Amino acid sequence: MVSTGRGTIKTPAFMPVGTLATVKSVAPWELEAVGSDIVLANTYHLMLRPGGELIKKAGGLHKWARWKKPILTDSGGYQVFSLGRISGGAKKMATVTEDGVEFYSHLDGSKHFLDAQKSIEIQEQLGADIIMAFDECPPGNAKGHYVAQAVERTHRWLKVSKRAWTNRKEQALFGIVQGGTIKDLREKSARFVEKEDLPGNAIGGVSVGESRARVWKAVEWSVPYLNPHKPRYLMGVGEPSDIVEAVKRGCDMFDCVLPTRLGRHGVVWVTGGGEGSKRIVFPCGKTIMYKRVALTQHRYRADKKVLDPQCSCPACREGFSRSYVGHLLRENEILGLRLTTLHNLYFLENIMKTLRNSIGKS
Amino acid sequence: MVSTGRGTIKTPAFMPVGTLATVKSVAPWELEAVGSDIVLANTYHLMLRPGGELIKKAGGLHKWARWKKPILTDSGGYQVFSLGRISGGAKKMATVTEDGVEFYSHLDGSKHFLDAQKSIEIQEQLGADIIMAFDECPPGNAKGHYVAQAVERTHRWLKVSKRAWTNRKEQALFGIVQGGTIKDLREKSARFVEKEDLPGNAIGGVSVGESRARVWKAVEWSVPYLNPHKPRYLMGVGEPSDIVEAVKRGCDMFDCVLPTRLGRHGVVWVTGGGEGSKRIVFPCGKTIMYKRVALTQHRYRADKKVLDPQCSCPACREGFSRSYVGHLLRENEILGLRLTTLHNLYFLENIMKTLRNSIGKS
Repeated sequence: MVSTGRGTIKTPAFMPVGTLATVKSVAPWELEAVGSDIVLANTYHLMLRPGGELIKKAGGLHKWARWKKPILTDSGGYQVFSLGRISGGAKKMATVTEDGVEFYSHLDGSKHFLDAQKSIEIQEQLGADIIMAFDECPPGNAKGHYVAQAVERTHRWLKVSKRAWTNRKEQALFGIVQGGTIKDLREKSARFVEKEDLPGNAIGGVSVGESRARVWKAVEWSVPYLNPHKPRYLMGVGEPSDIVEAVKRGCDMFDCVLPTRLGRHGVVWVTGGGEGSKRIVFPCGKTIMYKRVALTQHRYRADKKVLDPQCSCPACREGFSRSYVGHLLRENEILGLRLTTLHNLYFLENIMKTLRNSIGKS
Repeated sequence: MVSTGRGTIKTPAFMPVGTLATVKSVAPWELEAVGSDIVLANTYHLMLRPGGELIKKAGGLHKWARWKKPILTDSGGYQVFSLGRISGGAKKMATVTEDGVEFYSHLDGSKHFLDAQKSIEIQEQLGADIIMAFDECPPGNAKGHYVAQAVERTHRWLKVSKRAWTNRKEQALFGIVQGGTIKDLREKSARFVEKEDLPGNAIGGVSVGESRARVWKAVEWSVPYLNPHKPRYLMGVGEPSDIVEAVKRGCDMFDCVLPTRLGRHGVVWVTGGGEGSKRIVFPCGKTIMYKRVALTQHRYRADKKVLDPQCSCPACREGFSRSYVGHLLRENEILGLRLTTLHNLYFLENIMKTLRNSIGKS
């Protein structure tokens, strides 16, 4: 459990991603009904449009977006690299200096600069309950010496982030462990971040293109050095089976666009075995199988079953059939992706509940 | 009030349009909360995809789309002309014969044929509570002799529709008055349709490009011949001030894409006077002013007011500001158009409630 001024977050917790201060297609009251205790919003996107100043004047993210429970904002570190890189084209890469990152907006190509000081300032304007230190997250295929440099910068920027962090009563700052899939770097980074003694710690730099086995190594090399009495947030992981594996390894907070993005693509998680299914073994030994179902496939055209007969999300509870939801998705009708998104968020929150029960943290 | 096997429809009634068996962006439970007693679905769209047969096998529209209250389906007559004409291009016009219409699908250009017999058969497969006779609706600029021919065909097709109408216990068939803006034709058509003594009557062929003054003429020439104890449905009218004017002239059912389409374009109806506002004078004398507000305009960027301070729709009640909703709309975030659509549907349903109170039919 994590306590904030806006209520407690039951852990292990999954945080739906609300990049632009809205979890795509979902209303705040629906998210409350899902049972989400906290959502994530992206500093990078909000600083570019509408800007931190406007949101501050509106009374902060909570008031502006009508969400009363906790919010976590990331630092923008991940996006200035990933989005700045893609949109800028070959000649317009984000440029890392020792102080920060010069990058090009994915919206209009305009040039911007972000560093730890500015990231924390914007996160203060946004007013989230948990804010993240500014870090550098190299891609999964980065060379060892680059990863080592990125770790050094991340550590230096953590110090700057901590100094820039002024609203300590209302905002908890989390540090981020980097180090790619290199054992020494992970251990070094975890020790460094832990020593800063912040309210929580995160493991970044996973799920960026490396193999699943390497993700678990990176986690296993980091976790032992991080205070077990503080939240350990594994960034960017959202596949249900991965979350369970990460919880077994000591992580207890997660965020990912997966449930909402899959939903918008017409894919739902469904309980049951068969082709392409995955197995989850909870810490208590309980086992379930689940798989992805792409509802626009022809075979579901006249399927009267609900999305997942074992589910009690609004879509399944109200009896919407695969046939009807598939029709809505084929026709690009918004209700279709609303229902699949809600279903996936419920499905994952249900996994989290089972996890909490499984480890006696309900 | 109109009674159906699935409940009563308070009149005057506005029917939100659910072309593809979903009112765009709105969930059935939200529509119930709006207070809508009935929705409309389009036979033309549903016959092309997914087809009447599939919906029949799914148990009909109500069961398939999870809507328990009444549904009205149109005949497809309007769309085979308007959509068949646009999509086909110059050489692929819809072709009217004395029996029906050959048209080209707006989806893939494939050739189809629809006549009164087939329209009613499909509407039986869909299983709506109110079904419409197959008619021809000429555009507002059609020549007089063409409108006269269309009236003749509409009358002949009404006879065929009536013969094809077999599920008379569960489905009420409405006839449609045509005749453009020609007095003699309107009177002739209204007399003819009334003589068929169907459960309800509609006035079609308005709001197809003619002036507002001509619309009222067409209504005034039709209404006196239609039984006042049966519903008189004015097709395709949805501007609040127009609905009030039509009710004063004896109409009591309406449908239009306007509230949902405006919503998707970021435009909301707001109570109040000023530039571009319209005046509504209810039958009881009560007067209100209202206007359209385009929320993506720069002037609302930091506007903390809710969409309409006098409204109690979910968007306004929950305190969503013009600033935040404008942001959502600019970013193409689905929650934005969900909130504007809901707001407009509430706004219009509120007008309908005031109308019902105003004429003592609450």
